[in-house]
Amino acid sequence: MFRQTSDVAEWLAERQRTHRHRVRQVGLDELDGWYSEPGTGNLRHRSGRFFSVEGVEVATDGREVGSWAQPIVVQPESGILGILTRDFGGVPHFLLQAKMEPGNINLLQLSPTVQATRSNYSRVHLGRSVPYLEHFVAPRRGRIVYDALQSEQGAWFLRKRNRNMIVRTTGDVPVRDGFCWLTLEQIGGLLSMENLVNMDTRTVLSGLPGRGAPAGRTGGAPGRPLHRMAELLSWFTEVKAGRRLEVGRIPLAEVKGWESTAERVAHESGRYFSVIGVDVEADGREVAHWTQPMLRPAGRGLVAFLVQDFGGTPHLLVRARPEAGSFDVAEIGPTVQCRPENYAHLPAGRQPAFLAEVVSAPPDRVLFDVVHSEEGGRFHHAENRYLAVRTEGLPQEVGGPGEHFAWVTPAQLGALLRHGNHVNVEARNLLTCLRFAR
Amino acid sequence: MFRQTSDVAEWLAERQRTHRHRVRQVGLDELDGWYSEPGTGNLRHRSGRFFSVEGVEVATDGREVGSWAQPIVVQPESGILGILTRDFGGVPHFLLQAKMEPGNINLLQLSPTVQATRSNYSRVHLGRSVPYLEHFVAPRRGRIVYDALQSEQGAWFLRKRNRNMIVRTTGDVPVRDGFCWLTLEQIGGLLSMENLVNMDTRTVLSGLPGRGAPAGRTGGAPGRPLHRMAELLSWFTEVKAGRRLEVGRIPLAEVKGWESTAERVAHESGRYFSVIGVDVEADGREVAHWTQPMLRPAGRGLVAFLVQDFGGTPHLLVRARPEAGSFDVAEIGPTVQCRPENYAHLPAGRQPAFLAEVVSAPPDRVLFDVVHSEEGGRFHHAENRYLAVRTEGLPQEVGGPGEHFAWVTPAQLGALLRHGNHVNVEARNLLTCLRFAR
Repeated sequence: MFRQTSDVAEWLAERQRTHRHRVRQVGLDELDGWYSEPGTGNLRHRSGRFFSVEGVEVATDGREVGSWAQPIVVQPESGILGILTRDFGGVPHFLLQAKMEPGNINLLQLSPTVQATRSNYSRVHLGRSVPYLEHFVAPRRGRIVYDALQSEQGAWFLRKRNRNMIVRTTGDVPVRDGFCWLTLEQIGGLLSMENLVNMDTRTVLSGLPGRGAPAGRTGGAPGRPLHRMAELLSWFTEVKAGRRLEVGRIPLAEVKGWESTAERVAHESGRYFSVIGVDVEADGREVAHWTQPMLRPAGRGLVAFLVQDFGGTPHLLVRARPEAGSFDVAEIGPTVQCRPENYAHLPAGRQPAFLAEVVSAPPDRVLFDVVHSEEGGRFHHAENRYLAVRTEGLPQEVGGPGEHFAWVTPAQLGALLRHGNHVNVEARNLLTCLRFAR
Repeated sequence: MFRQTSDVAEWLAERQRTHRHRVRQVGLDELDGWYSEPGTGNLRHRSGRFFSVEGVEVATDGREVGSWAQPIVVQPESGILGILTRDFGGVPHFLLQAKMEPGNINLLQLSPTVQATRSNYSRVHLGRSVPYLEHFVAPRRGRIVYDALQSEQGAWFLRKRNRNMIVRTTGDVPVRDGFCWLTLEQIGGLLSMENLVNMDTRTVLSGLPGRGAPAGRTGGAPGRPLHRMAELLSWFTEVKAGRRLEVGRIPLAEVKGWESTAERVAHESGRYFSVIGVDVEADGREVAHWTQPMLRPAGRGLVAFLVQDFGGTPHLLVRARPEAGSFDVAEIGPTVQCRPENYAHLPAGRQPAFLAEVVSAPPDRVLFDVVHSEEGGRFHHAENRYLAVRTEGLPQEVGGPGEHFAWVTPAQLGALLRHGNHVNVEARNLLTCLRFAR
């Protein structure tokens, strides 16, 4: 029920050995129940549920590239990502699950107590009932700590949102096989190791109220922010009111530069991402065998904060950016968010701002540098390098008028994200690493 | 430059006499530059700008009536509603304008310092430049007090938003003809009179931070709220995650039950609203003569809060509700929001919840009861009765699971609305009346 931090990786490896998990790449035409829709080429499930892969045309004035078309995952239903917390001996513990996701590099990672799409809990795929769901749906007995509809990757998902929840209980909670109570300190230790704490756990934990980044990590005491909250909200309002983001849905077959074959959907350059099929066998999941399409990025991504003290108070450089799938024009993201390989063919002047600075930082300025993977239920081996780099000498106002950078304290970013659709999933996850990783 | 409160109504009447303002109802086919689009019947301007009148089909599970079709105003561009504030003798003053709007009953009302659509300030209709706009667009010198993208009437506008701003300045501000500095106390006095403070002024002032409702009005000191903010955000998240709102745009000509003639667009029953044409002559406006369509409601609306103390702290009963034009499923509205005449033909069981209670409250329970009109640039004689009624004995949990009522303190509602798209325009305006009216 309780474990030493050092035992958790071993516990995951042990479960890996004793449970059957196999993921095999297959052609899209080998997927059971999935079909390429005549006329549009959109990839759909015959039940009409789960998700589909379609196309979008995007026009915006707030990015390096002003217009493009791309495939995108359309998943209108929102699910629940919920973590149950309870004090033991006065110390808050969080109930996490060793969960297999077909896209995870090591298959098993620590997921939230509940990670369920509506199809999961309304039994569309005839799975078993979702354990602990009763703590997250009304009528609940626990105390709500955090509950917001949050966006997921705007580059890959069209306006997808999940409900992120933390619920505190005081009652007895039977610990089922595959679940485990961990302290924040233990989770922090695991966050500093590669690919153990899954994306859903990281995004939910970003909503935990309380402290900002630990002083030891960011090098300064929490203190007076450079900007009042009214100013930050105004800066964000200005981006949303002033930027243009026009997203039109088009048939997948009409997305220029992308090729659909029986095997997969991919860009002719090999860049960006492809859509592949997988065949999955697993016990310990609601369904023991299934096939599905997955999005596989072409290279490792980079998610980075520059961190600088102002008046002795650490600030993070954030950037509001429109993305193809943004729910409301733009959300607040990290300083740098990109797949560097997608820009490798472009000249230095068209590289993302601060990319060179963060990847070439000397080791003594690196506060945090760990690879984590994104949602293993939709993305195949989608790794991001989460990086926080200390800097100095940058001005209070960074970048040109259309670039939308701002310095915020970790506590301010935490306050903003408690309202949904303010802070994107990359910035939320990096904030969790920065706040909790040891 | 400064005026006694008692002089303001006289000042408006005086300006009315000395300026030429004439509004004449005309047929839609007499509007200059407006046309009924062949095939769809949508009402559009030939420039493609301003706004259009189209149709929507709405399906929701969160309202008395589950599905319907209706005409709706489509105005994708957002404008600026900005109030400039400055201290004189240590007392904050607000710069308001005596502005003619063709839909106002008395034509002239007090509007924000700046009330400009993007067409206004990008000069689409070749008007004069907008006075004081420089205080609200970058680079500004003033201090931001409040800045949020806020929704307007979801029953009439499709996802329309305006940027609501309050900017504090310390510099000298020349006062132009038609403008006037007023204290909050003076504005409060004017808010207790009918149809003097326009909708845009009321919605902007709702974002002024600081005190909740005055104790004298709501009968208790501000104190401990019934629900923590995390609980309120969770309640709002639950509505957005759990309710369905599907809005599909359809041609105006295909909206069932509505008739378009050369003269106007109206419902066959005479209920709800109609779309009429007006011919306007006015000096003191950017353009001295124009014609336009306007939406004219069939009857007076009602916007009401029930107010009750819990633990000595006054709370407002709010209700989250989906509307045809909601930007994100639902926003937080007042206890009652309806046009009673639209329900007159329905039995008691299908009347809006608490409608009977608020309209039949004995006078000693009425905290506030004044008629104000909605935006006079789009709506013709659209009056709402703003009503706040003290109650007692209602439980902490009101209504059934699908009704989405909650008790909040005025200060909590004020904090929520500083984020856009949380609180609807009716609740924001009523909160302004409750907080500031004397």
